[in-house]
Amino acid sequence: MKILVLHGPNLNLLGVREQSIYGTESLAQINEAILQHAGQLGIEVEILQSNHEGELIDAIHRAKGEAAGIIINPGALTHYSIALRDAIAAVDLPTVEVHLSNIYRREEFRHRSVIAPVCRGQICGLGSLGYLLALQGLAALLQKEENDYV
Amino acid sequence: MKILVLHGPNLNLLGVREQSIYGTESLAQINEAILQHAGQLGIEVEILQSNHEGELIDAIHRAKGEAAGIIINPGALTHYSIALRDAIAAVDLPTVEVHLSNIYRREEFRHRSVIAPVCRGQICGLGSLGYLLALQGLAALLQKEENDYV
Amino acid sequence: MKILVLHGPNLNLLGVREQSIYGTESLAQINEAILQHAGQLGIEVEILQSNHEGELIDAIHRAKGEAAGIIINPGALTHYSIALRDAIAAVDLPTVEVHLSNIYRREEFRHRSVIAPVCRGQICGLGSLGYLLALQGLAALLQKEENDYV
Amino acid sequence: MKILVLHGPNLNLLGVREQSIYGTESLAQINEAILQHAGQLGIEVEILQSNHEGELIDAIHRAKGEAAGIIINPGALTHYSIALRDAIAAVDLPTVEVHLSNIYRREEFRHRSVIAPVCRGQICGLGSLGYLLALQGLAALLQKEENDYV
Amino acid sequence: MKILVLHGPNLNLLGVREQSIYGTESLAQINEAILQHAGQLGIEVEILQSNHEGELIDAIHRAKGEAAGIIINPGALTHYSIALRDAIAAVDLPTVEVHLSNIYRREEFRHRSVIAPVCRGQICGLGSLGYLLALQGLAALLQKEENDYV
Amino acid sequence: MKILVLHGPNLNLLGVREQSIYGTESLAQINEAILQHAGQLGIEVEILQSNHEGELIDAIHRAKGEAAGIIINPGALTHYSIALRDAIAAVDLPTVEVHLSNIYRREEFRHRSVIAPVCRGQICGLGSLGYLLALQGLAALLQKEENDYV
Amino acid sequence: MKILVLHGPNLNLLGVREQSIYGTESLAQINEAILQHAGQLGIEVEILQSNHEGELIDAIHRAKGEAAGIIINPGALTHYSIALRDAIAAVDLPTVEVHLSNIYRREEFRHRSVIAPVCRGQICGLGSLGYLLALQGLAALLQKEENDYV
Amino acid sequence: MKILVLHGPNLNLLGVREQSIYGTESLAQINEAILQHAGQLGIEVEILQSNHEGELIDAIHRAKGEAAGIIINPGALTHYSIALRDAIAAVDLPTVEVHLSNIYRREEFRHRSVIAPVCRGQICGLGSLGYLLALQGLAALLQKEENDYV
Amino acid sequence: MKILVLHGPNLNLLGVREQSIYGTESLAQINEAILQHAGQLGIEVEILQSNHEGELIDAIHRAKGEAAGIIINPGALTHYSIALRDAIAAVDLPTVEVHLSNIYRREEFRHRSVIAPVCRGQICGLGSLGYLLALQGLAALLQKEENDYV
Amino acid sequence: MKILVLHGPNLNLLGVREQSIYGTESLAQINEAILQHAGQLGIEVEILQSNHEGELIDAIHRAKGEAAGIIINPGALTHYSIALRDAIAAVDLPTVEVHLSNIYRREEFRHRSVIAPVCRGQICGLGSLGYLLALQGLAALLQKEENDYV
Amino acid sequence: MKILVLHGPNLNLLGVREQSIYGTESLAQINEAILQHAGQLGIEVEILQSNHEGELIDAIHRAKGEAAGIIINPGALTHYSIALRDAIAAVDLPTVEVHLSNIYRREEFRHRSVIAPVCRGQICGLGSLGYLLALQGLAALLQKEENDYV
Amino acid sequence: MKILVLHGPNLNLLGVREQSIYGTESLAQINEAILQHAGQLGIEVEILQSNHEGELIDAIHRAKGEAAGIIINPGALTHYSIALRDAIAAVDLPTVEVHLSNIYRREEFRHRSVIAPVCRGQICGLGSLGYLLALQGLAALLQKEENDYV
Repeated sequence: MKILVLHGPNLNLLGVREQSIYGTESLAQINEAILQHAGQLGIEVEILQSNHEGELIDAIHRAKGEAAGIIINPGALTHYSIALRDAIAAVDLPTVEVHLSNIYRREEFRHRSVIAPVCRGQICGLGSLGYLLALQGLAALLQKEENDYV
Repeated sequence: MKILVLHGPNLNLLGVREQSIYGTESLAQINEAILQHAGQLGIEVEILQSNHEGELIDAIHRAKGEAAGIIINPGALTHYSIALRDAIAAVDLPTVEVHLSNIYRREEFRHRSVIAPVCRGQICGLGSLGYLLALQGLAALLQKEENDYV
Repeated sequence: MKILVLHGPNLNLLGVREQSIYGTESLAQINEAILQHAGQLGIEVEILQSNHEGELIDAIHRAKGEAAGIIINPGALTHYSIALRDAIAAVDLPTVEVHLSNIYRREEFRHRSVIAPVCRGQICGLGSLGYLLALQGLAALLQKEENDYV
Repeated sequence: MKILVLHGPNLNLLGVREQSIYGTESLAQINEAILQHAGQLGIEVEILQSNHEGELIDAIHRAKGEAAGIIINPGALTHYSIALRDAIAAVDLPTVEVHLSNIYRREEFRHRSVIAPVCRGQICGLGSLGYLLALQGLAALLQKEENDYV
Repeated sequence: MKILVLHGPNLNLLGVREQSIYGTESLAQINEAILQHAGQLGIEVEILQSNHEGELIDAIHRAKGEAAGIIINPGALTHYSIALRDAIAAVDLPTVEVHLSNIYRREEFRHRSVIAPVCRGQICGLGSLGYLLALQGLAALLQKEENDYV
Repeated sequence: MKILVLHGPNLNLLGVREQSIYGTESLAQINEAILQHAGQLGIEVEILQSNHEGELIDAIHRAKGEAAGIIINPGALTHYSIALRDAIAAVDLPTVEVHLSNIYRREEFRHRSVIAPVCRGQICGLGSLGYLLALQGLAALLQKEENDYV
Repeated sequence: MKILVLHGPNLNLLGVREQSIYGTESLAQINEAILQHAGQLGIEVEILQSNHEGELIDAIHRAKGEAAGIIINPGALTHYSIALRDAIAAVDLPTVEVHLSNIYRREEFRHRSVIAPVCRGQICGLGSLGYLLALQGLAALLQKEENDYV
Repeated sequence: MKILVLHGPNLNLLGVREQSIYGTESLAQINEAILQHAGQLGIEVEILQSNHEGELIDAIHRAKGEAAGIIINPGALTHYSIALRDAIAAVDLPTVEVHLSNIYRREEFRHRSVIAPVCRGQICGLGSLGYLLALQGLAALLQKEENDYV
Repeated sequence: MKILVLHGPNLNLLGVREQSIYGTESLAQINEAILQHAGQLGIEVEILQSNHEGELIDAIHRAKGEAAGIIINPGALTHYSIALRDAIAAVDLPTVEVHLSNIYRREEFRHRSVIAPVCRGQICGLGSLGYLLALQGLAALLQKEENDYV
Repeated sequence: MKILVLHGPNLNLLGVREQSIYGTESLAQINEAILQHAGQLGIEVEILQSNHEGELIDAIHRAKGEAAGIIINPGALTHYSIALRDAIAAVDLPTVEVHLSNIYRREEFRHRSVIAPVCRGQICGLGSLGYLLALQGLAALLQKEENDYV
Repeated sequence: MKILVLHGPNLNLLGVREQSIYGTESLAQINEAILQHAGQLGIEVEILQSNHEGELIDAIHRAKGEAAGIIINPGALTHYSIALRDAIAAVDLPTVEVHLSNIYRREEFRHRSVIAPVCRGQICGLGSLGYLLALQGLAALLQKEENDYV
Repeated sequence: MKILVLHGPNLNLLGVREQSIYGTESLAQINEAILQHAGQLGIEVEILQSNHEGELIDAIHRAKGEAAGIIINPGALTHYSIALRDAIAAVDLPTVEVHLSNIYRREEFRHRSVIAPVCRGQICGLGSLGYLLALQGLAALLQKEENDYV
């Protein structure tokens, strides 16, 4: 079972960028933790970060047929990229949305996710731990559905 | 380490109530799973369900000094109970908000949580699994902070 | 056939409270009329008034399996108690919403009922007569549906 | 005592039009039931259906002096015809608004009635039964007021 | 002359809860000061704190006939409890609304009081002093009206 | 020079309808005053009242080529009849909008005129006098423009 | 195969009315072009223009059973006639909405069509050509569906 | 009978300022016409122009007891000066609001007058003629009321 | 200790102006009561009323260094004068906002105070008594802070 | 005459993606139909699909001087890409917007096109046929304008 | 070439007022810098500060014919003084709006300038430097236009 | 000291695109002027134009550590690219936003900049001169801060 992990715009600056909001871990460290946790769960993961909306959409399209599910932190695209939303709806793969910070505690415009309605669920505010929980949650969901269909 | 788990109004009807939205598990089954998972993590949990806003507030007040954190599924109170929100802010215990369904996929009025801004994070749409992930996440956060203060 | 009749907050003050809006009949007199009309229709009724949202929810939950339908005047809870709404949706019993006054003639905030979308219908502005018409209407609906299923 | 019963635009298609919303009874059948129920209550009724806002207004004007009250299902005009509203206010006859479907369960724009604030009350969601209950309710109100003035 | 003093949800945590907003005085200390000031003014006071909307409503109902006026700090219920508002309107006793903090300086949702329109007046932002000024103000108003009616 | 005077829905009930708002003059009396004033000004007038939006539109169309200007009291159509607005814009005749009552003193929805932006001007709140002033104003405007084009 | 073509209020003034927006073609010329194009496509068309909402609704009702589809330019009724919308929904015939001008380039209130959600599609901004394209498009759709059902 | 005529901010620039909107007449010329028309009607007028909100308020206060009515063109203060509104309400003199241009044809923010609800009526869009009609209208109203009270 | 008391626009008309809202006391009488109460509290007061926003701002600026606090009833400026708000924020003196009437019971636009967020607190609806309570409250606050800083 | 045909984000998944909304035709099949229809009309077409907003903008820029018009289905960018809108406005080529589905029947946020105001017209809801009609319509418009300029 | 520099309400307190927002420079120091910079550019400047809206309007009127352009920091009037806006529009002199702080970083209500649409441009957030840049920019614009007209 | 100058989407068409809004200078000419002015100020500049949001973000990221500040004209991205905003916030370099046209004079949607709150300041409406003033302003700010930290 393979899961695609997507990091949206500006997440490459983690650890550098606004540490009071996003913490001091770098994206490399988070990815390392994801890979390790995935290994423990027996899941294959492919990780991509991009500042380009189009590349994230292309990656989601490629996932169709290759991956069993998607974990996505859309960064700022969360709040306006209907194209990203449509990409997730189009490939119809179980998707979990992750945010490092609690977006409901921040500026008004960050409270609305145009992505959320096409995802299975959302985990936010738990820092990089959110990715690991999402991995675990998505794996459980996929296994359960697999069993339901057998 | 003890964690308070709160279920808000109508969650006692789980498994009976609108199964297409909330699934077929009963609240007893979910609580069983929470207790078992907590046992594995070495955490003590106290669980309470109430249809009365006031009782939930009272329980949160009692948690101050007794529990290290709170997991709460406020049910419909999510969307209007500022009193519940103030209770969480008042006791200042790390709190994770859980929703069984993806509230962002449902009626417009369910998209806004007045509780979220005073919680550490939110997990929604992952069914009863959300409680277990919240337990795990909260435990990790508490441990990390404990270490940070040593 | 048994029908649950619920009166929400402040309705215990009827006949005392703002007579220019709500008339001079007391709640006891209205309940008397309801019981008498129900007797004529051969319907059993259980009547409850409470100023506590939680007690109304508990009563609705208990109705599941006991009553065939609900008549509810949610009082001020009409306008914000999503928990009450969810309770009605959860037990899935045919429900008719009643208001003594014409809520669309009063303050702007009284024009919106969060309860209405989960009810079969609404009768408002016809004073205590509204309860009797609701009883009659609900009885007819239940009978018709019973026949449809035979 | 004579009561004017008005059916607004598209109600002539009842039984044909969107049966999942409006049921299978034709307008002729509903009118038959109204006439029969009125007969039992000793009330004279005049019934009119029109797709023309102006004709409905003209009919309301004529009612002044002829009828003791009005029952109106304004159809789609419910939501925008301030001219209809003003006609009802102008003749100052007790009026009950009836809707076959529960308008609060449907599209957002159907939740607002510009007619409601000038009516005595509203009955909605109870199908064609609503007309009969309105007849009964209006008759009772008129009798009560007659007695009050004697 | 007796005055009912009501404290809404979470006010039992005063002195503990968010001290930067609400100060360090406990509710017991504030109540003590109220009782002492009332003694000086020759007023009897009854004080109640509750986290339950229903209990506050019940207390307001009981005040009818017993108390000459009400001082209420509705806490978070200020912003949504139309049931509380209706209770105050129903008993028709002169009521003064008190807030410890300046609610107009805080979150947007705290700027609107659904209680205010049925009160005589509002005192906010002056800390626990607000209760004492309200006591004084209410006493003066009641005396003046008493005199006006003699 | 001929001017078309149009009265919209429900204005035929003037003198009967809500006298506290519209006064006790009948439409016949107002029309009489208009004709007399027009005579004094040497203007020919054609007067039409209709409760049918379509008839008012037809009349406006006919005015093209026949009349030099229009005086219109659109009644309730003021607030929603974009078709009426488009008719006035289409024939491109100088038009003055008249309201008997001060619409800005009444319900919120009466504050907006969809007709106003395509008229030369508006006179409201001056009772039936408004028609006479409009007549005078329109005559002056037409004369001035005539002179400007010579 | 017969198609009903409806022109709403003020379209009878085409060629005369605001030429900078609507062009110089008269409605007669447009109808001529429609008839000719229909002839080439082997379609029968019935064309009606009315300034009366009620007449347009009546015509739509008559189309039921007579016509296979509807092409409608509702003129200003586009923006508020829910009655027209309900008529189209009631007869359930494939309908294409046409506008001569690009309504999204004009006043804000012209951007919303209450008709659009019950139509198959919309063509706007292409002048009288829009009717011909709608004819062609509707014919193709009807043929395709006919084939799908064989 | 004396009438106070007030011109608000920037009206001193008439004839100079934006001629396409306000025409070429200077304020002196308009005042001349007002004085002349008043003379013909046998009315005394006092005219004041000010760019200072406070001076206009002072003038309105002084009118109390001196003038029988007010004609005011509040200029831009129309849209925000609640202080001016309160001044008019406070002195309780019949007031007519005049605007040279049709404010409903201009920017959105000019469509709302905070002054209108406390005036008898409004005349707009008829250029300087509006003042003369207002004079005539106000004189007629005052005379009528005088007669009514005799 | 000196306190500046400011009365905004139209308050000079107290006792004359709309007595049903503002009572029958004149401003002179209120000022007398303020001076007397201040004397009892051992406070010096300076009182100013102005209908000019600019004069009120100038007075606030002068208070800097002269007065220890401000009591202000901004009248209608409450609702739009951001300049007044900025003046209060700029001089940074403890300020209490007073309103004679309960502004939350009146027109919608009076519910919002742009001044409130820069004041310590607000007292409204208690008539002229509000000034005396404000005096008392402000004196206590200033004394307390003085003590805190010692 | 050459026309640029642009397909926005996710349209490459047509036939695969949400078939209930978008049908079963693939983009290749649609492009084939476009090319064939263009051939019949004697028009050259260049077709581009991209998930990258920037590439679509670059393509529009290149069209300047090369193509005579543009047909664009902006996909989800319809609803937020002001950059795309500005690109179309910048090159000032006649553009027709096409949508396969009826966007006015779908989620609220799909009802607003930021692209529409800079296009000549819009065709939506007619499936892939919409492209062919757009081609025909654009060709006719271009020919007509060419003739107008000769 | 002479330029009028206007400072609105509260700017006289610069250096004293909220230093964290506005810095420590006094208005005298800023004016000094403006005069010096103007000298270097060979421009004459007239500087005025006022807390009175009316005085600022008067000054703008006087500038007509005297000055070639205006630099204005309207202070809080930025957000509501339509009278100031109309004054600038009336004299039709090239105007640059300056703000010391970045108004888009502050309270929501400071994000909207009613002045901006009638100015040439806006410079904000660059402290007192903004005035100097505005001077330079305005001078360049005026020179360019002078040249264009030669 | 090096400054990054970024031009957003469609700015490559300057001089060609909508000349009435943006003038006749080409981007090359503007860049030439920027380079020359920078040379005079002794500043190194790097200039980039892109129609791709992602490329602009990448460039901002690269600036971290290389440049001392940023000047950005985000074009249409100004109004929705939260990703661009987050990039600027993430690198935390002093940034000045520049617009050629006065965006507050144009369509409503251009009045809001999502970029502005993370910039130091904004210069708009002064044409290409804005870039030169921004350069000068940014240089001065950087120098001042450098000095402050010494």
